[in-house]
Amino acid sequence: MQKQKKIAVVLSGCGHIDGAEITESVLTLLYLDRHLSGYKVEIFAPDINQSHVVDHQTGQEVKNETRNVLKEAARIARGRITSLDQLKVDEFSALVMPGGFGAAKNLSDIAINNNDPKVLPSLAEIIKKFYQQEKPIAAICIAPAVLALALKGLAKDLLVTLGDESGEPMIKKFGASYQTAITELPVVDQKNKVVTVSAYMRDDKISNIAYGIESLVIALKNLWLNH
Amino acid sequence: MQKQKKIAVVLSGCGHIDGAEITESVLTLLYLDRHLSGYKVEIFAPDINQSHVVDHQTGQEVKNETRNVLKEAARIARGRITSLDQLKVDEFSALVMPGGFGAAKNLSDIAINNNDPKVLPSLAEIIKKFYQQEKPIAAICIAPAVLALALKGLAKDLLVTLGDESGEPMIKKFGASYQTAITELPVVDQKNKVVTVSAYMRDDKISNIAYGIESLVIALKNLWLNH
Repeated sequence: MQKQKKIAVVLSGCGHIDGAEITESVLTLLYLDRHLSGYKVEIFAPDINQSHVVDHQTGQEVKNETRNVLKEAARIARGRITSLDQLKVDEFSALVMPGGFGAAKNLSDIAINNNDPKVLPSLAEIIKKFYQQEKPIAAICIAPAVLALALKGLAKDLLVTLGDESGEPMIKKFGASYQTAITELPVVDQKNKVVTVSAYMRDDKISNIAYGIESLVIALKNLWLNH
Repeated sequence: MQKQKKIAVVLSGCGHIDGAEITESVLTLLYLDRHLSGYKVEIFAPDINQSHVVDHQTGQEVKNETRNVLKEAARIARGRITSLDQLKVDEFSALVMPGGFGAAKNLSDIAINNNDPKVLPSLAEIIKKFYQQEKPIAAICIAPAVLALALKGLAKDLLVTLGDESGEPMIKKFGASYQTAITELPVVDQKNKVVTVSAYMRDDKISNIAYGIESLVIALKNLWLNH
C-alpha cells in the first residue's frame, strides 16, 4: 500500500513581528489545500522560546514575557501541529516556509546577528535533506534568506527573491543570486527546485499577497512533485 | 468632497480557543479587499483582557497568564487596529464579525453563561446602530449567535445559520430563526440585511471554509451597500 503523499509547512510563532506572518501562513495552507489536495499537509514548529515577545499594537518589546514558538504557532494550525524535531524528511514530498520576523529571529538569527548569522541547527539539517533528496522547497517573505543561508555552500547558483532591490545585499552575503519581483510573482529556480515570493517584504494589499502565494503554490506543484 | 466608504471588522483576539479564529479573520480581510476594493477596511477589537488564555497545542487553560484582546487581535491586523470604543457607526457602511471562541467568551459570554448571557455592552450598541441604520451585517462561525443576542427584541424574524442542526437551540433561545447550511453556503436574510456562514462551526477543510467566507462577502456586497 502506498502511503499518502505529504507536504511539510514550518511556522515560527504567531504574529509578524515576533513569529510567523499570520496572513502568509493561512494563505499557504489555503492554497496547498486548493491546488495540492492529494497531499496531506503537516505543520511543524520548533519547541523553543521565541527570541522575544512584541506588542503588535505598539510595536514595542514586552520585556517580562516569554512565549513558546510551537504553542503560538498552534494558534494558526488550530492545534494540529508537531514539534519540528519530529519532522522526518523521508516522509515528505516538499517543504514550505512562510515568513514573518519569526523566521529571522526564531528559526534563525539573521535579523539580530549581522556578524555570523545562523539557522536553527535542526531546521538547517531539514532544509539540507529536502534539497539533497531533490524535493521542492518554497519560501515566502524573509524565509528565502533563511533558506539561502541553510544551503550556503551546498546549492549552486541558488536564485531567490525578497521583492525589491533592498533585499539583494543579504542574499548575496548568503552566497545566493537575487532577482527582484513584484508581490504577485514568485521567482522559480527550476534547477535547484526552489520557489520564492516576497509577500509582506513589500507592504502590499492582501489580495496581491494572496495572488503571489497562490502562484508560489502553483509553481511548487510544477516542480515535479514525484516523490 | 465625499469621504471614502468604509467597512468595520471586529476581532476578538488571536486564536480560535480564546480569541478570534485566525483563518476566518484573514480570509475575511482577503475577500473584502478582493470583492469590495472600493471600501476601506478598518479593524477593531475591545481593549479588554481575554476571559482566559488557552494553550492551543494542548487545549488546556493557562492559569497564570493574561492577554489583552486588542493587542492580540493586532497580530492578525498587522498593527492596523483601533479600540472598539472608537468605532463610529455613522462612518461605516457595513459590519463584519469573524468567529472563534473569542466571540463567545470575550465579545460576549454566551459560551460560559447559560442562564443570562450578555453581549459586551459597547459591541451590543454598535450592532444595534448598524441594524437601525439599515446597514448590512455579516457574521461568521459562532458570531451569528452574538449578533442574534444583540438584536433580540429588535430584529423581527432574524434568520441566521451556525451550520448543522446542533446550532438551532441557542439561536432559538436568542429569539431568531435558524437555517442549516453547509460550509460553502452563507444564509442571507435580505429583509434584515444580515448574512451568516458556519465556517469552523463545521470542522471542514480550509478550501471549503474559504469558499463560504468568499460567498459571504459577495452576499454582503449584494445587500445594497449604498450608505
